[in-house]
Amino acid sequence: MQEKPNRVTIRDVAEAAGVSFQTVSLVLNHPEKVAQKTLQHVRAVIKSLDFVPSMAARSLRRIPTRTLACVFFGKRASYDNRTYQIQDTYWNNVVQTINRVADRAGYAVQQRSQGADDETLYEEIRNLFLGGRIDGLIAVVERTAHPVLLRLQEQGFPLVIFGTRDAQFSFVAQDNAQACAEVVDHLVAGGCHALAFISGERDGHGNDDVDERYRGYRAGLERHGLAMQAGWNLAGDWSMASGYRIAQQLWNAAQRPDGLIFASDRMALGALKGLYDLGVRVPHDIAVVGFDNMQYDDFCVPPLTSVHSPVLEMADAAVRMLLARITGQPDPGDSQQVLATRLVVRQSTRSANPGSRG
Amino acid sequence: MQEKPNRVTIRDVAEAAGVSFQTVSLVLNHPEKVAQKTLQHVRAVIKSLDFVPSMAARSLRRIPTRTLACVFFGKRASYDNRTYQIQDTYWNNVVQTINRVADRAGYAVQQRSQGADDETLYEEIRNLFLGGRIDGLIAVVERTAHPVLLRLQEQGFPLVIFGTRDAQFSFVAQDNAQACAEVVDHLVAGGCHALAFISGERDGHGNDDVDERYRGYRAGLERHGLAMQAGWNLAGDWSMASGYRIAQQLWNAAQRPDGLIFASDRMALGALKGLYDLGVRVPHDIAVVGFDNMQYDDFCVPPLTSVHSPVLEMADAAVRMLLARITGQPDPGDSQQVLATRLVVRQSTRSANPGSRG
Repeated sequence: MQEKPNRVTIRDVAEAAGVSFQTVSLVLNHPEKVAQKTLQHVRAVIKSLDFVPSMAARSLRRIPTRTLACVFFGKRASYDNRTYQIQDTYWNNVVQTINRVADRAGYAVQQRSQGADDETLYEEIRNLFLGGRIDGLIAVVERTAHPVLLRLQEQGFPLVIFGTRDAQFSFVAQDNAQACAEVVDHLVAGGCHALAFISGERDGHGNDDVDERYRGYRAGLERHGLAMQAGWNLAGDWSMASGYRIAQQLWNAAQRPDGLIFASDRMALGALKGLYDLGVRVPHDIAVVGFDNMQYDDFCVPPLTSVHSPVLEMADAAVRMLLARITGQPDPGDSQQVLATRLVVRQSTRSANPGSRG
Repeated sequence: MQEKPNRVTIRDVAEAAGVSFQTVSLVLNHPEKVAQKTLQHVRAVIKSLDFVPSMAARSLRRIPTRTLACVFFGKRASYDNRTYQIQDTYWNNVVQTINRVADRAGYAVQQRSQGADDETLYEEIRNLFLGGRIDGLIAVVERTAHPVLLRLQEQGFPLVIFGTRDAQFSFVAQDNAQACAEVVDHLVAGGCHALAFISGERDGHGNDDVDERYRGYRAGLERHGLAMQAGWNLAGDWSMASGYRIAQQLWNAAQRPDGLIFASDRMALGALKGLYDLGVRVPHDIAVVGFDNMQYDDFCVPPLTSVHSPVLEMADAAVRMLLARITGQPDPGDSQQVLATRLVVRQSTRSANPGSRG
C-alpha cells in the first residue's frame, strides 16, 4: 500500500506537456482560466500518461460523495425493447420517487441494473463503495436473503431493502397480505362471492410481495368461507395486454367469477378494457380491483378501485434509514418497517350493499 | 499542488488503530478477509482521521468511471408531493430509457435535479467532472442556449442536449412541428375543420418543444385555409385533470371545435374521460389526438390517436454521441439530429372520409 516510486506526478505532466507546473495545476483546479487550446493539450497529456492527480483524492474529500445506488435485484425492471413504447410501471415510479426523496436530502442516486451473475454484481457494488462512488445502497429485491446483499452487509456497507420483508436486513415494505385481505372484505361486502386473483410473473424464488398478496387473498376467502377455484388463480405478465386477455378468458369461463383482483393496476386497466369491449358492465356484472392506485385509475371507464401503495412514505423511510447508517447515527430501532396500504374505492366495485346484486 | 507534509498516511491509521500496516491495507483492499470487529474499528479510525487513502485514486484508475449524468434543466421534472400518486410522465420514461440504453453500453446514469441557481448548478456539474465522478452529461432542456451548458461546453466537458434543437450544441430532438402539421392533415382528412390546440405549461423562455408543436399546428391550419379561434388555443398543466377540464370547457364553448389536439397523452386521456362523462361521442362528435403514444392509448375508451415519440431512438443517439465524445472518436458529422415522429391512428379520430361527417 506504499506509494509506487514511479507514480506519475504533476511535474511529469508539466514536463511532458512542455508547460509550467502552475499551468497543469490551473488545468486541474481552474480550467476556466486556461486557454482552450492549452486545456486540450494538457488534458491529452494527462490522459496519455494515465496520470491520476491527487486532486482526485482531494476532490473526494472536498466534494462529499453524497451518492446512493438504487439497484434492482430481479427481472421486474427489465424492458421489452422489441415493442418499445412509453409506459408506466410501478417500478419506474419507485426509482423516480427514491431519486426525488434523496435529492431533497442532498443525495444523488445512481441507478444500476442487475449484473450478469451474482459474483459480478457483488464486485461492481463493492467497487462502487470502495472507490468512494457511493455511500449507500437501496436494493429493490424480489426475494429474501439475496446472497449478494448478505455479503455486502457482512462487509459493513450501508444498505436498505426496498419492497420485501427480509429479517436479515433493514427494510421498508408494504403490508401486501393485509391489503389483499381488505380487498376481499370489500368485494364480499359488495355482494361478490366468487373471487379470482391474477398475479404477475413470478421469479420462482417465492417469498416475494406477489406471494404475500396471494396469501392475503387466500386468508380473506377462508375468513368468509368462500371456495377457491383452481381456474381463478391466474398469472399475467404485468402488462395491460395480459389483463385484457385474462379478464375476457375469465368472463367466458364455465365457472365465471364475479370479482377480479389484480396484483397491479396495469393489468386491471387492461381488464377493464377487455370487459368493456365485450359489453360487460363493471361493476354490475363483475367487479374489478387493481393494486398501486395510479393516476389513470380516476380516468378509466369505469374508475378503478385500487390499493394505494405508500411509495412516497416507503422511499422517505428507506432514504432516512440509509442516511442514518451512513452518517453513523444510533439505530432508532425502526429499521424494519412494514407500512400500511389503503383501499381507494372507485366505481369498478360495488359499495357495501349485498342486496343490490342481481 | 504539492502533497501536504502533514497528510494522513496509512501508517498513521495503523498507529492510531493499534494494528499493523498490513491490516489497514487489508481493510482497504480485501475487507472480506478482515474480521468484522477489526473492520469496524479500523474504518472508524479512518473516518476520525479524515484519511483519504491513495487507494481512492487507485480505485478511480482501476475502475473506469463509466458514469453519465442526466440532468433536467427546467421545471418539467418537478413533482407535486402534496397530491403524490403513482403516475406516468413522458420525462420519467425518458430518463428510464436513457438509463437502459446507457446500461447496455456499460455506463451507469446519475440523475440530478436542477440546483437552486445557475452558479450552483454549474459548480456541481463541473465538480462531478473534475472529481472523476462522471464522464459525460445528457442535458434535458426546455430552452436553447442555457448559460450553464454553454459554460460547461466551453470547458471541454462532453455533453449532449436531449429534446431541444440547440444549434450551439450536439443535440437529439424530435420534429415536433412536422408532427403537429401531420396531425392537422389527418384531422382535416377525417372531416374536421375547427381545430383546438392545448399545450402544457410554458416556462416563458420560448423556443421549446411545445412552441414547436404550436407552430406546426398553425402552419397546418394555414395550409388548409382554416381559421384559428383565440379561444381554441389553451394551456393545461400536463395533468389528466387539466385535460378533463379543458375538454369539457371547449365542448361547452359558444364556438365549439370539432377536433382537439393535445400536447401530451396524459392531457388527452383526461379529455377522453371528460367527454365520456358528458356523453359526447368520440370521434363522431369531436375528435381527440394526443402526443407521446403511451401504452395506455390502446386501452382507453376509445383508443387514442397519438404521435409516437421516438424516445428509444433518441436515447440511443444521445448516448452514442456522448460516448463518441468521451472516448475521443472523430466527429461522425451527425451530432445534431432531429428524428421523425409517426402518427399512430386509433379510434379517437375518423379515418380519411370527409363525407362521413354529420
